[in-house]
This record gives sequence, structure tokens and C-alpha cells, in this order.
Amino acid sequence: MKKNTIQDGFPNSKKVYVKGKIHNIEVAMREIQLSDTTDKNGTVIKNLPVTVYDTSGAFTDDSIDVDIEKGLPKLRENWILERNDVDRLENLSSEYGRLRHADATLDHLRFDHVSTTPLRAKKGKEISQYYYAKQGVITHEMEYVAIRENQRIDELKEKYSQHEGCPMGAKIPKTHITPEFVREEIAVGRAILPANINHPEAEPMIIGRNFLVKINGNIGNSPTTSSIEEEVDKSLWACRWGADTVMDLSTGENIHETREWIVRNSPVPVGTVPLYQALEKVNGKVQDLNWEIYKDTLIEQCEQGVDYFTIHAGLLWKHIPLTVHRTTGIVSRGGSILAKWILQHHKENFLYTHFADICEILAAYDVAVSLGDGLRPGCLDDANDKAQFGELEALGELTKIAKEHHVQVIIEGPGHVPMHMVKENMDKQLEHCDEAPFYTLGPLVTDIAPGYDHITSGIGGAMIAWYGTAMLCYVTQKEHLGLPNRDDVKEGVITFKLAAHAADLAKGFPGAQYRDNAMSKARFEFRWKDQFSLALDSEKAMSFHDETLPDEGYKSTHFCSMCGENFCSMRASMEVRDLMDKADEKAEEFKESGNEIYS
Amino acid sequence: MKKNTIQDGFPNSKKVYVKGKIHNIEVAMREIQLSDTTDKNGTVIKNLPVTVYDTSGAFTDDSIDVDIEKGLPKLRENWILERNDVDRLENLSSEYGRLRHADATLDHLRFDHVSTTPLRAKKGKEISQYYYAKQGVITHEMEYVAIRENQRIDELKEKYSQHEGCPMGAKIPKTHITPEFVREEIAVGRAILPANINHPEAEPMIIGRNFLVKINGNIGNSPTTSSIEEEVDKSLWACRWGADTVMDLSTGENIHETREWIVRNSPVPVGTVPLYQALEKVNGKVQDLNWEIYKDTLIEQCEQGVDYFTIHAGLLWKHIPLTVHRTTGIVSRGGSILAKWILQHHKENFLYTHFADICEILAAYDVAVSLGDGLRPGCLDDANDKAQFGELEALGELTKIAKEHHVQVIIEGPGHVPMHMVKENMDKQLEHCDEAPFYTLGPLVTDIAPGYDHITSGIGGAMIAWYGTAMLCYVTQKEHLGLPNRDDVKEGVITFKLAAHAADLAKGFPGAQYRDNAMSKARFEFRWKDQFSLALDSEKAMSFHDETLPDEGYKSTHFCSMCGENFCSMRASMEVRDLMDKADEKAEEFKESGNEIYS
Repeated sequence: MKKNTIQDGFPNSKKVYVKGKIHNIEVAMREIQLSDTTDKNGTVIKNLPVTVYDTSGAFTDDSIDVDIEKGLPKLRENWILERNDVDRLENLSSEYGRLRHADATLDHLRFDHVSTTPLRAKKGKEISQYYYAKQGVITHEMEYVAIRENQRIDELKEKYSQHEGCPMGAKIPKTHITPEFVREEIAVGRAILPANINHPEAEPMIIGRNFLVKINGNIGNSPTTSSIEEEVDKSLWACRWGADTVMDLSTGENIHETREWIVRNSPVPVGTVPLYQALEKVNGKVQDLNWEIYKDTLIEQCEQGVDYFTIHAGLLWKHIPLTVHRTTGIVSRGGSILAKWILQHHKENFLYTHFADICEILAAYDVAVSLGDGLRPGCLDDANDKAQFGELEALGELTKIAKEHHVQVIIEGPGHVPMHMVKENMDKQLEHCDEAPFYTLGPLVTDIAPGYDHITSGIGGAMIAWYGTAMLCYVTQKEHLGLPNRDDVKEGVITFKLAAHAADLAKGFPGAQYRDNAMSKARFEFRWKDQFSLALDSEKAMSFHDETLPDEGYKSTHFCSMCGENFCSMRASMEVRDLMDKADEKAEEFKESGNEIYS
Repeated sequence: MKKNTIQDGFPNSKKVYVKGKIHNIEVAMREIQLSDTTDKNGTVIKNLPVTVYDTSGAFTDDSIDVDIEKGLPKLRENWILERNDVDRLENLSSEYGRLRHADATLDHLRFDHVSTTPLRAKKGKEISQYYYAKQGVITHEMEYVAIRENQRIDELKEKYSQHEGCPMGAKIPKTHITPEFVREEIAVGRAILPANINHPEAEPMIIGRNFLVKINGNIGNSPTTSSIEEEVDKSLWACRWGADTVMDLSTGENIHETREWIVRNSPVPVGTVPLYQALEKVNGKVQDLNWEIYKDTLIEQCEQGVDYFTIHAGLLWKHIPLTVHRTTGIVSRGGSILAKWILQHHKENFLYTHFADICEILAAYDVAVSLGDGLRPGCLDDANDKAQFGELEALGELTKIAKEHHVQVIIEGPGHVPMHMVKENMDKQLEHCDEAPFYTLGPLVTDIAPGYDHITSGIGGAMIAWYGTAMLCYVTQKEHLGLPNRDDVKEGVITFKLAAHAADLAKGFPGAQYRDNAMSKARFEFRWKDQFSLALDSEKAMSFHDETLPDEGYKSTHFCSMCGENFCSMRASMEVRDLMDKADEKAEEFKESGNEIYS
């Protein structure tokens, strides 16, 4: 297992913690230190540091020595126990979980500090963040996310842009996010706070359209390639670069053990598609899938600490004929498996018929459900068709059931959709799903760019997030071609980070433009090192600059190799300002003269 | 000089030519051959080839042996001469041009077959495509672009998607583009056909919002780095991957000679910013710039064959004070130079005061003018401000003057603009500039992603092109950091190709989705080689696939390394179809049963 791989790469940054006011909590953020500005008179002016949202966890705190073999500190453990609504079990509830733990041949794969005494809600107790929000309780987690979303906006001394409200109808507070606002948004189901009581290592975060747009990074091995080490490394790597959640989509061997390593080391919520593992348990034979195996898998994963499950419960028998004339049929893995199962058994989707049972299980651990879009379009030609929207209506129905069980719920969305059809997806989702947060894959706005699908989906992703999607699932450049490696994961995360940020700006999230403004100022003043520090990917920015001008001296020159010295517009523009100072009256005098020549 | 670098990379493609009906012309296209589909019964079904727009010129025609030292064949020479409206001059009209040619120390840099007898309009003759269009004449060039835009859409046997008109108001013909439609669009100034009579090598293309969205690739050396060889290579490389025009933005040494090589080998229109070379002529001293030097530079470049000039004539004295409180001042190179000149001389911008003279020169060679946005915003904080829109109004005024001189005109646009402010740019441009085509740089929708600015600008570019922008200037991943190299050029071109294509799809351009549909069908049928052939970047798609599954056998397997065999949704989806065939009646019977469980 590689260590220390995520300690580097944030130049001039330090970890800072902001204390809570309601609860005794400390919210982690990253503070980027900037150098001073020296004006033309030689006066030195301080540039305030910029605080940014940080998903990298304790790995980037120099004062904490994280040992991947022991896992992250259990940040939330006391918060959970103090609520006095959970029991510590004496053994795992899942039969499969117990078998795996008893199997000595797996010892070499196993995470050392694995717990066999998970937490579960006390009998008769409701424990989800949704339940607490509805009761009017602001939990530790809720205050944490309120502080986290603000990124110290209340401390910012300089102006930050805030436009006149989101044209797409998001009702984001004008100045900052309060703990009470967080509670309200969770209480009405417009936001979720995924926080399995068995994943106390995760730092609380919120998914909802009135908050910062979040991104998910998919990792996970496939039977064709990869190993536990690689996948744990990819998961940490994704958080390091900004993934707000990671989904472990492993379908190969040792899924249980891989997940244990990932969850214990994940500072962000972890999602899975339990159907994948259930299918592995029946050796890939779809017809052998059944509710008992699936149920045991849910419990196994709830007790490991998975924070949200993708469950394709809205794909119904009646929808399948609607896919027959599609160009690419059913492209969701879960969707195609369930469609096969339905037709083999001549029975309705067992995830649909057992959905209330599923919710009961999830509620006992505060695991959120992400209602999967098994019929998402796999190409432009299938976008927004009856199959897709038929399933979306069923997801709306299931949303109500989840809420009745106090299970937090989000809705998954497409897929491949041309730009002019993207907004309809958002509108219909809001209409059918009671404003539950939307979580989309892209959408990809063309079909012809394999190798560049992080970009085709970044375009659709930025747009749909602006329209109101709460979380974007990243797409890597390997999409349609192969399993992403470490570099692909990073490229995908940064691409979606920028797409999400573009939406935050367009929605007018308080302070969203603060970092951009600091970057622009650093650009105009040729503070190259500050530009690198403020970049989403400091390493790449610096390496691109240094490719042509590697000497240290070029980190302070007033130009780069793009235009050279005489043609640097920023340099010339500064000279223009000096000239303006001298010529202010003259300018006034001739102000209107230009217009007269051709009029 | 590298040769044959652009002969490869288009697997299973061949050059095809479509004959004209009005004129004796042959329009070059690329035909992608596809393999057959074998259905589950073993029946072989032919897949029709897909014809795509091709900007690579004769370099990709196996029957033509292009020698870069001699330049491309002069496709348009006879068309031009047949119109009998131009004279062949006995010598170059530009003093500087004559001096460079006489300088023996430059012989080693010089393009061998350089012409010193350029063409110019006969005295009293109007020769531009705009003029001819207004006279009701369909030129060879106009028929060429009509055929080219259609990509053999009229021959397509299968359905292609065509949605119910562009929601953004573009009036694109429903079925195909006719030569008469091309003429009409040019005649009203809603489209231009850049075609300098001294660049007969270029294949005609059209820029207008009712046509395919075009992209420009910037190349050119800077004083800090690069050579003639590198820049010519980059220019061919950009066309190879899909640049519809290239702009030579060289600012270093030997600009004249570099350009000669580029123009003689460019199958696409070439643009420049003549101010850059004028500034080099006065050794970078802005205050020494004057109309005479600029005028001689215009003539020099008109006679070399540059097809369009960026001219920052709308940046007026009165606008400069509006930039003083900007975060990044003036970020256009031309803009900052002119602002400096205005303030140094206390005079109005000489490009504005001499704009009518400029138009007279351009009209004699049919060089188009691209009215530069010297005050485009260089950061989100400056977007859509008074300086920017003040200049835009001035550009509208200049548009009228250009048209009076029968000069074809397009308008340049931003820059850095957050998503919610992008559309206002398009709306205002249409309002002020009499529907002249809009040509934008991005826009970039965040400031904080240096190293990924091809993506931030691809997002804004796709959106503004959907709104009506006719041509996108690419931005490479080196933006803000350094001069792009060959790989950056390719990455930038493909990114903008996909952004432009996304807009063509969203605007409902006839047949735009045909290639996407062919790709989707190839995906669903696991015709891997066809997927690579149909991709915008076949090489990258194939190399990504082969990274994990390199053996030839994996080019026909029904899965890839992303999901592996049991979890391939497309594979499962095919099985679903087989099951559906068997269970059609059963399905009907249970069709409505699902809904009853929770209702």
C-alpha cells in the first residue's frame, strides 16, 4: 500500500479548522497563503489568504499521521453515541459478512482493524439526519456542513460577487449558509446529509441544489483488471483532488475486503451499487439473484459503513418493452441486470416489490438511497424517451416511500443528452420527485468523442448543475473504452470540479467567485506562484508554465512564453493605467470625440 | 520540415469528392467505411459509410503528393480568374514585402515558390463574395460550401434526427443547405465566406449561425520560443484535426516568412492580427506605430493571401477610463497596445479613424475583417461590463462601414464570462451588429482552472455556439501559462470540435446526429474498430482501449475493461432483447401489474 501519496501537491496551503458555535466541532478547510503585492510606488500590500473547501481529510493535516492500515480517526463517533439512539451489536448481522470474517484464507487481504461490532438504531428509534431535521434538531453534522459550505465567507474582508439570484430558481441565501438553513433543507428533503453511523470517519457534507454543487468519483475494480491496492489508492486520490463522495463500483474479486479498506480510509461518504456484489455472490448468474441474497448484501454493506446505495427500484416490467427500439438499449449495468431478471422470472423487479423492506434496513443505519436510473439513455438518439421518463415517474413514487421511512433520498439522472434537451431532465425531475436532490452522470452532449468524454460530460454537467442538479457523477476520459487509472481519475475529478464550480458561480452561491477573483488579481500582478497555489491543479499549472520557462527567475517576470515580453497584454495594460493616471484630464476632454467621425 | 505527419490517423477512411451541379467543382469529404453487422441469426447487414466534413486538405488524398516546399494545389485559381475582375500585379505593392524579398540573408528561410505577382481587384471592380451574393450571383465558392455543409446528407439512406427548430432562433433549413441559401445568407451579411484571391489553395468554407459551427486554431511563434518549422507543422496539424481556420499570431522573428509557408500550405482560411507585425516593425515601441506602417502591413498580408484580419478598430479613447477599475484591465494584446498608443499620442485609435481606408484595401483582395474585441473581459469579475459592451456598440457602427465597402465582416467576442452571463453576450451582439457572425474566444466559465482552460472554455463555447455564435476560437490547455505545443494544439482542436458539434446537434443542423447514431450503433454491436474510426480522435480512443486490452482478439469481444464480461450492460441489454422476443405476450399480460403494489 502506497503511503503519503496525498501529502503533496497543495503549495502554500495549510489545514485550518473552524470551530462550531452550537456544537463542539472543528471543521476542516484548506487555507491558501498568498504573497504580497508591491505597487508601483513600492508599497507592500498584504493579500489575504483564500480558504477553500477541502475533501482530502486528515491525510493533508501535517499534525496527524494517518496510517492507511489503521484507517482515519473516527471524527463522528462521539456525536453518534451521544444521541443515544444506537446499539453496538455483538456480531455482524450479515451472514456473508460473518463468513468472510471467519475465512482465514482471506487474512492477507483483510483490513487489520476491521470492526465486527457495528452500530444499529435502537429498536423503535429513528436516527437519520432527515428524521432529526424534521424534529427541528440541528445535529453536529448539520452545523458542520453549514460552516463547511461557507468556506469562511463571513471572515472575508474583500468584496465577493453575488449576482441577483439564480435565474434557474434555486433559493440560495444571499450572504451565507446557516445551520438552521441546512436543517430546513434536509427536513423538506431538498438536501441530504449522507452519514452512515458505521462510517464515523467521514466528514459531513451536504447534497442539495441550494448548496455547493458536489461531485462523485467512481472507482472500483473490474474482473478484467486492478487490485485492492490500486482501488484504495484511487479512492484516496479522488478525494485528494476534490471528490465529494466516492462510489466503489467493484465487480471483481474480494469486493467485501476492498470496500473495508476504502471505507475505513475515506474522509468522504462512500456509495455502492449492492446489486453488483449480490450478482458476484451468485457467480454472475442473473437468474439466481433473489431478495434474500440482496437483503444480506444490504445489511453487510450497511454495517461496513457505506453511506448511500444506488438501487434501481424504479425499473419496472412495463418499461422494458419501451427500450426495445432504442439505439443502445439499456446501458446501466444495474438496469440491464434487473431487466434480464424480470424477463427470466416473469416477475416484477424485486427491488421495487421489496422497496419498503429496503427502506427499513437503510433507516436503521442512516444509509441514504440513490434511486438509480436503470433506463438512462446511452446515446443521444435515446435521450428523454418514454422509457427514461417512465422510470423517472416511478422514482418519484419511491421517493415518497423512502421519506415515509425517514430514509434520505436522491435521484439519479442521465446519461447521453444533447444540450437542447438537458433542461427538460431537470424540470421533469423536480416535477416528479418532490425536489429530492438530482444526481446526474454528465450528461454527455455528443456521442462521437471517446477519449474526451470527461469533456463532453463536463459541458452537460456544468449546464445541468446550473439548472439545479445537486451532484455530478464524474466521467473519465476512459469512458466507453476501459477502466480508468490513477491519472484518469485525477483528470476526471478536476474536470468535474471545474464544471461544478462553473455552476456555483452561475447560481450565485455566496462567495463562489472569491477564489476566481484572487486568481485574476494574481494574474494581473504576475504573481505566478500564487496563480499555481490558487489553481484547481497546482502541479499541472506549474508544470505547463515551466515546460518553456523553467528557470526560477521566470516565476516573477511580467510575461510568459505565450506572448513574450512586448506582447504581454497584462503588462501593457498596467502601463495603460500609469498613462491614465497622467492623462486623466485629457481623457475627459476627448471623451466623446471618437463618436463623431462616422456619425 | 516534417512530411507525411498528417497522412495517418484516419483508420478506414478515404477521401471522396462530390461534384457540383452549377459549377465544375469537386468538394472534398472524408468517407468512413464501417464493417458489417451480423445479427443473432447470422444474417450479414451492411452498414453504410459515414461521410464527414474534412478540413485536412489534399494532405489526406493518397492520389496527391503534396510537397510542403511547393505548397498545395491552387484549387480556386481558375474560378477567380474566370470572373475577370482581377489583375495580376507586376510586383508586390507593399514596400516591406519588396524589401524582404530582396534580402538575400533571408533566402534560407524563404518559401521557394513564393509569388511576387499577386492578384488585386481591377480598378473600379468589386470582387468580394459579399458583393457577388448581393448581385444574386452564386459563385463557385458558394456552391462548394453548400455541398460541403451537407456532408452528403441527401444521400443518407437512414433516418437522421432533426428536432423542431432551434430554440435559440437560428433559421436553419430543415433538410439541407442549398447554394441559393448560402448566397442569401452572405448577401444579408449573416454569413461570410473568407476567400482572399491570393489564397487560392484554401477550400471554401462558410461562417454563419445557420451553418455548421466552425472552430479556429491559433498558432504562431512568440519571441520566447518556437521556429518556422514548428509553426508550419502546428498549422497543418490543426487542420488535420479539424480547425476550420487557423490564425497565425506570430510575434517573434521572421513573421513574414513564417506566414508565407503557412498560407501556401493551408487548406483553410488564414487569419492574422496585422498590428502584431506592425509593432515588430517598430521594434516593439508602441508609440512609434503609425498608419503608414500599418497600412503597408495590411497590403503586404493581403498580397500574401491572408483571408481575414483581426482589427481592433472599435476600442475608442472614451472606453479606456472604463477599464481602470477592472480586475484584469485590458487582456487583448491588440487592445492593450492600442490603448497605450491612444494615451501616448492623445489621439483617437488610428484603426478607427482610418477604418474606411482599411476597408478599401481589404475590398481589393476580398479579405474579411474580424472586428477585434480589445476590451474583452479577462476574468469573470470584468465580464459584461461597460467597457466590453461599449466597444461592442462601436463594432456595430464599424460593421455598417465594412458592409458599405462590400467587405465581409465578423465580430469577435469574449473572453471570461460566467455561465449565467453568456447569453447576454450573444443577444447584445445580434442587437448591435446587424446579425454579422459572432466569433468568440471560449468563453471561459471559471478563472481557477489553469491547465484545464480548454475545458472551461469548451463549456462556454458549446453554450454560446448553441445560442448562435458562428465560430469558436479554440483555447488550449496552455492558456495563461505558455505557448501551446503540437499536442496542446491537437487537444484544443478536438475539444472545440466536440463543443461545436454539441452546438450543431442542439441547433438541429440537418444530419448533425448521423455520425453519433452510427457511433451508438457500433457501440451497441461491439464493433470496436468502427467506434475508433467514427471517433473525433481515433488514435486516442484506440490507445485508451488497448491500454488494458491490447490483444487483437479484444477488438471483437462483447465487453471492455471498464465493466468486464458479466457486468457489460450492452451485452446484457442484447440478452434482454432476446428474452423480450420470447416473452412478448407475457409482458403484455403483466404490463400494468407493477403500479399496483404501492398505490
